[in-house]
Amino acid sequence: MNITIIGTGLIGASMALDLKQRGFARHITGVDKSPAHLQKALQLGLIQSAMTLEAAVAQSDIIVVATPVDSLTELVPQVLSLVNEKQVVLDVGSTKKAVLDAVKKHPRRGRFVATHPMAGTEYSGPEAAISNLFVGKCCVLSDIHESDADALGICQKLYASLGMHTTTLDGEAHDLHVAYVSHISHIASFALALTVLEKERDENRIFELASGGFQSTVRLAKSNADTWVPIFRQNRDHVLDVLDEFINTISRFRTLLIKRDFQTFETLIRQANDIRRILH
Amino acid sequence: MNITIIGTGLIGASMALDLKQRGFARHITGVDKSPAHLQKALQLGLIQSAMTLEAAVAQSDIIVVATPVDSLTELVPQVLSLVNEKQVVLDVGSTKKAVLDAVKKHPRRGRFVATHPMAGTEYSGPEAAISNLFVGKCCVLSDIHESDADALGICQKLYASLGMHTTTLDGEAHDLHVAYVSHISHIASFALALTVLEKERDENRIFELASGGFQSTVRLAKSNADTWVPIFRQNRDHVLDVLDEFINTISRFRTLLIKRDFQTFETLIRQANDIRRILH
Repeated sequence: MNITIIGTGLIGASMALDLKQRGFARHITGVDKSPAHLQKALQLGLIQSAMTLEAAVAQSDIIVVATPVDSLTELVPQVLSLVNEKQVVLDVGSTKKAVLDAVKKHPRRGRFVATHPMAGTEYSGPEAAISNLFVGKCCVLSDIHESDADALGICQKLYASLGMHTTTLDGEAHDLHVAYVSHISHIASFALALTVLEKERDENRIFELASGGFQSTVRLAKSNADTWVPIFRQNRDHVLDVLDEFINTISRFRTLLIKRDFQTFETLIRQANDIRRILH
Repeated sequence: MNITIIGTGLIGASMALDLKQRGFARHITGVDKSPAHLQKALQLGLIQSAMTLEAAVAQSDIIVVATPVDSLTELVPQVLSLVNEKQVVLDVGSTKKAVLDAVKKHPRRGRFVATHPMAGTEYSGPEAAISNLFVGKCCVLSDIHESDADALGICQKLYASLGMHTTTLDGEAHDLHVAYVSHISHIASFALALTVLEKERDENRIFELASGGFQSTVRLAKSNADTWVPIFRQNRDHVLDVLDEFINTISRFRTLLIKRDFQTFETLIRQANDIRRILH
């Protein structure tokens, strides 16, 4: 397979690396509006060639669009307009409804598969690419009934080659789910980092004590604004709902502390411990 | 050295393991009000013998009190009343002011060193003990001017043998710092877990998508209530202050989403990214 990756950031470049190493791709072409990223991806051997979007699409079996989610609504229809009835286009965005709406009436809609490989790190750019990023993780395929059967099949083979299992969710359900299991974690982490950084102005030794627990909750606060602002913009309504619930819950802990009701505090901790059932 | 560990949970038992393996301790005696814990610690080879508190203290050079913080205010004075002018007593609690106040007027005050090795995991009990838990981490020594020089010296050698570096903070400053870099992370994590578990009642597939980012922010929600409720009880005032600041910060993100002010949202994310400076 000849594959084009549009957007050679963490996800696109990690995918490029594994698709080539695992033999699914014969040749990977990179497309990126940043010449520096493209240069870096070539230099690191993540892609084998760099081209303009039109030239790359013309010679590819599969086109993966791996740019920030705000550009998908323009880019995906643009790429679809360039492909024939055998080529396959997929996106890897963290929100699904907006891109699905953008291609709804496109004459080549069937060649598109909306996907979200649930994997990543807090780093970004081609230099953040790592091998085996996707192994054992889950990839969501959305609104698959709108995709041609052969396009869907190729897409499933691609993710299988990366070591992922796939699940299906319609775009709306996907966006709600990820607000809970991903987006809110990022906001909590940004807010924790800001709270402690603010305090650091008065207490400059505060980070001397930062231990493993702090590091794991604040790790996501390193995440890139260029990736995340478009996600929060597109998934604003779901994120707001979850944020309200989170603020309510954390305010409950506050009220219990104020009232010194440590018995209910303990009950809540034991309920939260139930997360052990899910995360091992 | 003969060492007694009172409280054979995660911290006490991990310490026992390393102090013996690294040759600092010749023999470790365990004391625990739970016979099951004591039995387990013996069985796992974490301690070499089990005794009553009085018998254990009588034959030890160093006594480490590693119980939940609410019991320290009684236990540490009790142990101090049993030691002579050569023995050393130290606690390893996550709060320092309460235990320091409890020993303030004790005739053997000088034999006590208040410490907090900043290390741990989300698991508890002797079966959670691991080797090298303390390596490269920071241990806080509080109000060291109240300890005899030789007791302090022995304590510093003990932590050096575990691979820790030490720092000093008075009890009040310690409790404020850990509210920021540890206690608030735990509350945020408990609240996140509860928010998502609550949603799971309606949406039973929600955890299918839980990825690495979610796991790292929610990891601390597995933490043991028996350890943490006493910490929140003792450090209530500092935790409340930090919690208010955290709620304010997260409410700011909420307001920005409501207003669709994504420019300021981006500025806040870039400020939060400054955490990269501290956590590598």
